Amino acid sequence: MENTEKAPNGVNLEALIGTVTAVKSDPSLARFRFRAHNRWVAGAHSKTTIQGFYGTGKEDSSRKNPFVLEGDEPPVLLGGDAGPNAVEAVLHALASCLVVGLVYNATARGIGIDSMELELEGDLDLQGFLGLSKSVRPGYEGIRVICRVKSSATDAELQDLWTTSQEISPVLDIIRNPVPVFSELKKV
Amino acid sequence: MENTEKAPNGVNLEALIGTVTAVKSDPSLARFRFRAHNRWVAGAHSKTTIQGFYGTGKEDSSRKNPFVLEGDEPPVLLGGDAGPNAVEAVLHALASCLVVGLVYNATARGIGIDSMELELEGDLDLQGFLGLSKSVRPGYEGIRVICRVKSSATDAELQDLWTTSQEISPVLDIIRNPVPVFSELKKV
Repeated sequence: MENTEKAPNGVNLEALIGTVTAVKSDPSLARFRFRAHNRWVAGAHSKTTIQGFYGTGKEDSSRKNPFVLEGDEPPVLLGGDAGPNAVEAVLHALASCLVVGLVYNATARGIGIDSMELELEGDLDLQGFLGLSKSVRPGYEGIRVICRVKSSATDAELQDLWTTSQEISPVLDIIRNPVPVFSELKKV
Repeated sequence: MENTEKAPNGVNLEALIGTVTAVKSDPSLARFRFRAHNRWVAGAHSKTTIQGFYGTGKEDSSRKNPFVLEGDEPPVLLGGDAGPNAVEAVLHALASCLVVGLVYNATARGIGIDSMELELEGDLDLQGFLGLSKSVRPGYEGIRVICRVKSSATDAELQDLWTTSQEISPVLDIIRNPVPVFSELKKV
């Protein structure tokens, strides 16, 4: 396993070690606040703008332009299909999260990843969303993830890496465990 | 409140009523399976492709092209900033979901929405993701949502609408309550 290059798996290993060391010495640097702003367009269509966030003790202003994410529903769910729907976006968030955790931890362990693909699916009974049944939850009943990795590491090393990736995954934690959500509607 | 137009709030009211009626008479139509495919690019960067899904008793093939969502991390989190990160994508999913539920229920109730914006923020302690503390959860400690609505409806009508929108929101349910996730890593 070649581990002397500066950016194995495309990750700056020195910066990764530096971040871990910095947070160990000052845990307040680990406090992050992420934000999103959403504007309704029409029907099921809305646009989310994501740019600034707080972290490492300061406001981050490195993004010169915001990211804009479209949300909509497909025609069968009465939308105009301008973007994936909200529960599809959850699958994206989960995949993206698991990838980052796996790649960062692989890099820290000196494991090279040649390629990686994830397949995700989630089952949902629309009776909950339609308000037709109080006993049917509106969200996913279950989600399945298959991660296919090409690597010269052993199967045991990869399984251990996968276990760690799940343990430290923010989005997997958000999905598997309760997160308090405080909400407020204001008439303007 | 004008409710005789065919698409109040940009929602096809006849289709909405038709969907509810159809699912009431055959609840199996409400079973949906959503999917996502993610491919790692390099470092924290991955791309999620979203296209087909199963619902209303059949595979949906209405989308001629897939949606592609980019996931990455900002520089301070060792990424190349090719897209919002995974926990920011969660905020987008939540916003998009609440908007759809609110607009559909408003339409069913004959409430017109003139405009709507949502502000979301979530607090996260990176010590969990970095594996530096077993007592710090990797996911959000809490999320706040403020929904600002312009409408001629009364404040009481809008608050009731907001309550319903939360009760039937798939993504809010996924975030507030546990969802089982089955995962598997395969070496290829």
